[in-house]
Amino acid sequence: MSKALELARHLETLHINNMYKDDFYWTWDKTDEEIDAIFTVADALRDLREHNKSTRIFDSGLGISIFRDNSTRTRFSFASACNLLGLEEQVLDEKVSQIAHGETVRETANMVSFMADVVGIRDDMFIGEGHKYQKTFMDAVDEGFHHGVLEQRPTLVNLQCDVDHPTQSMSDFDHIIHHFGGVENLKGKKIAMTWAYSPSYGKPLSVPQGVIGLMSRFGMDVVLAHPEGYDIMPETIKIAKKNAKASGGSFKKVDTMEEAFKDADIVYPKSWAPYAAMEQRTKLYGKGDSLGIDKLEKELLKQNKTHKDWTCSEEMMKLTKDGKALYLHCLPADISGVSCKAGEVDASVFDRYRTPLYKQASFKPYIIAAMIFLAKFEDPVALLKKLEKKEKPRVR
Amino acid sequence: MSKALELARHLETLHINNMYKDDFYWTWDKTDEEIDAIFTVADALRDLREHNKSTRIFDSGLGISIFRDNSTRTRFSFASACNLLGLEEQVLDEKVSQIAHGETVRETANMVSFMADVVGIRDDMFIGEGHKYQKTFMDAVDEGFHHGVLEQRPTLVNLQCDVDHPTQSMSDFDHIIHHFGGVENLKGKKIAMTWAYSPSYGKPLSVPQGVIGLMSRFGMDVVLAHPEGYDIMPETIKIAKKNAKASGGSFKKVDTMEEAFKDADIVYPKSWAPYAAMEQRTKLYGKGDSLGIDKLEKELLKQNKTHKDWTCSEEMMKLTKDGKALYLHCLPADISGVSCKAGEVDASVFDRYRTPLYKQASFKPYIIAAMIFLAKFEDPVALLKKLEKKEKPRVR
Amino acid sequence: MSKALELARHLETLHINNMYKDDFYWTWDKTDEEIDAIFTVADALRDLREHNKSTRIFDSGLGISIFRDNSTRTRFSFASACNLLGLEEQVLDEKVSQIAHGETVRETANMVSFMADVVGIRDDMFIGEGHKYQKTFMDAVDEGFHHGVLEQRPTLVNLQCDVDHPTQSMSDFDHIIHHFGGVENLKGKKIAMTWAYSPSYGKPLSVPQGVIGLMSRFGMDVVLAHPEGYDIMPETIKIAKKNAKASGGSFKKVDTMEEAFKDADIVYPKSWAPYAAMEQRTKLYGKGDSLGIDKLEKELLKQNKTHKDWTCSEEMMKLTKDGKALYLHCLPADISGVSCKAGEVDASVFDRYRTPLYKQASFKPYIIAAMIFLAKFEDPVALLKKLEKKEKPRVR
Repeated sequence: MSKALELARHLETLHINNMYKDDFYWTWDKTDEEIDAIFTVADALRDLREHNKSTRIFDSGLGISIFRDNSTRTRFSFASACNLLGLEEQVLDEKVSQIAHGETVRETANMVSFMADVVGIRDDMFIGEGHKYQKTFMDAVDEGFHHGVLEQRPTLVNLQCDVDHPTQSMSDFDHIIHHFGGVENLKGKKIAMTWAYSPSYGKPLSVPQGVIGLMSRFGMDVVLAHPEGYDIMPETIKIAKKNAKASGGSFKKVDTMEEAFKDADIVYPKSWAPYAAMEQRTKLYGKGDSLGIDKLEKELLKQNKTHKDWTCSEEMMKLTKDGKALYLHCLPADISGVSCKAGEVDASVFDRYRTPLYKQASFKPYIIAAMIFLAKFEDPVALLKKLEKKEKPRVR
Repeated sequence: MSKALELARHLETLHINNMYKDDFYWTWDKTDEEIDAIFTVADALRDLREHNKSTRIFDSGLGISIFRDNSTRTRFSFASACNLLGLEEQVLDEKVSQIAHGETVRETANMVSFMADVVGIRDDMFIGEGHKYQKTFMDAVDEGFHHGVLEQRPTLVNLQCDVDHPTQSMSDFDHIIHHFGGVENLKGKKIAMTWAYSPSYGKPLSVPQGVIGLMSRFGMDVVLAHPEGYDIMPETIKIAKKNAKASGGSFKKVDTMEEAFKDADIVYPKSWAPYAAMEQRTKLYGKGDSLGIDKLEKELLKQNKTHKDWTCSEEMMKLTKDGKALYLHCLPADISGVSCKAGEVDASVFDRYRTPLYKQASFKPYIIAAMIFLAKFEDPVALLKKLEKKEKPRVR
Repeated sequence: MSKALELARHLETLHINNMYKDDFYWTWDKTDEEIDAIFTVADALRDLREHNKSTRIFDSGLGISIFRDNSTRTRFSFASACNLLGLEEQVLDEKVSQIAHGETVRETANMVSFMADVVGIRDDMFIGEGHKYQKTFMDAVDEGFHHGVLEQRPTLVNLQCDVDHPTQSMSDFDHIIHHFGGVENLKGKKIAMTWAYSPSYGKPLSVPQGVIGLMSRFGMDVVLAHPEGYDIMPETIKIAKKNAKASGGSFKKVDTMEEAFKDADIVYPKSWAPYAAMEQRTKLYGKGDSLGIDKLEKELLKQNKTHKDWTCSEEMMKLTKDGKALYLHCLPADISGVSCKAGEVDASVFDRYRTPLYKQASFKPYIIAAMIFLAKFEDPVALLKKLEKKEKPRVR
């Protein structure tokens, strides 16, 4: 039996009726079986492609991408996922980094969605704004669909908001599953999500938030560490705690990178901005107080510099299980001596993990395609089985 | 019988042989039956899509879009139309807002058209230039095709020039047809195309010109109103008068918004720039006289401000037939208190008409697709009938 | 027998096994039969398209284009070629004109190639850098493919580097073949590749280098001429000499445009930057010495101006065979009195050759498609024969 067929049969055992016609905002909106379904379909689509079986299930249709922050890998992953399924990507190029007003969002949402089967949105710059933008957008297309403006209601793929980055965390996790030979091998494994120093201090919080929110669901011991003042959104901590308890794993916060790395099986050291400061910035931005923003930025940079010791050095790696923890990063990393003087990771560590890091990223197009697949087709099992029979090769 | 099949049968009764291999510059170039054919095919394509029947009739091929002015909704409409038929959109990104020279246009036209089945052009910034650009472009591809440079001659879809905006006016009108339950119900209905105040004064004239040029063909009473100095191109007035006479309707110009709105069934209040001033600006631009342009702009803004009372307020709406005229706008509108302090329309009026406004816009992709369809296929009736049989679903 | 079938049969006689899964960097990497195969497949694909036979052989897949220098015609040619074969173009928009670092290139290469069947790269700004960038990129995807990061290894189409511009020179040559009625008629024909004055002095050297490297393979008399100081890369001169000898033709360098044009059957007058100065510029750029770059630029512009007599005037054209040599240019040309005061060519000369010039450019999409076709399919003969039977029309 082919791997794709095996995966289709596994999919058959899962309760996933709620995924049809639904959106993907946050992983914690989804049940464990729904999360399993995403990994299952992602792996099946990858297997089909590896065996040159076409998965073009749309004969026409658009995938709209809206990047309100820069992106290369997520943009290409979204475009790849759309193409894999037969959708053409169209980019909506708004002026980036602005807080959008409800009226405009509502109108734009309808105007670009006349033939959109999928909408992928990244809006991660302002705490309290990114998710709101996505929600306003989707409410508007909902309304448009019900009033006959739109022929179809596009499905949302959250390509990163201020709260979660589900396509990232799920690619990360699919990578871990493959690396450790199955999700059943992850019980009791320790993963350290830690802050790391980078000279560009303002990175979104959604990666650590998304990672602890997802990784805590599989019986792992999840540890979060960051310097004082670099807290993440408290509600995501609550979610991680709840998940850990339900899955038979654990979640705890520690105060040093050393403690987090100690005996870890997996480490994910990465820079992010301090939550409280980001909230303050959103407010200043909302008031148009550019002087206040400048002042805040200077303070933050000064504070940031005092934590250069939070770096994934060779010494730090030695603390991990057998000195050989799996090193994760969402890329691009700030590599000491390569992309900056002092950064998130030693060049020698990064070098050693380059292939696993690229593999980690390689799951993203399939994760996105799986999200679309499960939201768009009422009987995904039957469809997978049909594609598996190779009605059509991808390349002649 | 399905709606699409019904429409195909209606299409069979129309004399439309001249549409094959022809371009779409202005609605008044086309006969009444040709205009009817566009609406018919647009509605048929929409019906096919609603019933998940694929209308992918190109297995490969490009739709080139050239936007010499900014655009979101027309750009997405063009991309959607191309995708619906199987063409891939490619954007030619020229520096915007420049008067293009013949030599360059001629060369560019050929260089981007090697595999172009369609070209969509927006060039609306300079009176006397937009149409000229499109004509020069199409003459060049004509020559290229006849000399064996191009395998095929792309068809032109005018996405807005200085004279007409046919994809807009035809979407507007398809919306009206649906709203009033058929073109036969429009005889004697009053439509008011009026100027309205907006702080950004330089909007193209092609919308009002296109609207009076098209709406005057169906036996309606078309009324145009604007403040002194905001005349539109006189030749379009002549066309509207001639059309009105031929169709058994009427066309007249009045001096106030109030008079225009009085008992109107449909109102279309919208800002545009004064024609004479725009002509002057084109000349100054041609001479590179930026001092002169600045001076002119200041005068125009001053003049513009004296007409803030031309606004689609609740009071103004009360003057219309039962206070319930259908409100139209090509979007985005300048909404008082929302997108600007004082603008074209009251927020409460706009709010009440949001769904109809979005519907109005939703016809554009199908209008564009119909223009392509009729220009590219010698026997559109047979093709529609074939597609209607659902050889292939759009989504599996 | 159709032309496409005839060409498929000719292809059958050629030894081209090494092309499968190979990249296209430089024409001189390829054997004469491989070069022949490219022309053969290009002409066959053109014939299929002319007869409305679909050549969509990819059901999904991406063609990534990376333009590190501006481009219109090569960009559209690449997009057209991808579309013709069923691939969707995705543009990687890097900041242009920067020397890229190995680490970044390596990562980017993998991140954009998860579903890339083809990568087209233009990087021609810095001597010693363009080819290096392409090589680093392809080594990275090679590694990624072997480590299971990528499902497929994309094939490279060099869209212009610092050394060669193979899609240009091969389009030029396919045009010459058609113009003179077959490659067998070219023996003993004289082609003059000469420098010409343009006010924008910094154009890449890869066009003249590519032209002498390719044209010298067919028994023609190739003559290169340029003012003192405008040498091209010495290794390309060596290649041209070697090729000329092997093909029974000749290669020589002369010191004046007049001598080069004398009795020439084909002339290719075009501006390029002086090699030594470009090398110096690369070094200054690498050091970030912007003052040095400015100084160098001033000197070069001064030197450049002393050679305004190197122009393809009517007088110069009279020196050619019967005054009627075929005039070539890769476009856009700097036309005296049109695009600049004094430039590469008289307006009347350019005008007379406009149609042949556009034809010259029209081969590029097919050349690129042929490069992809031959790199991607193990049995291109069988595939061509299949497509020729018209399983599917391109346009319904």
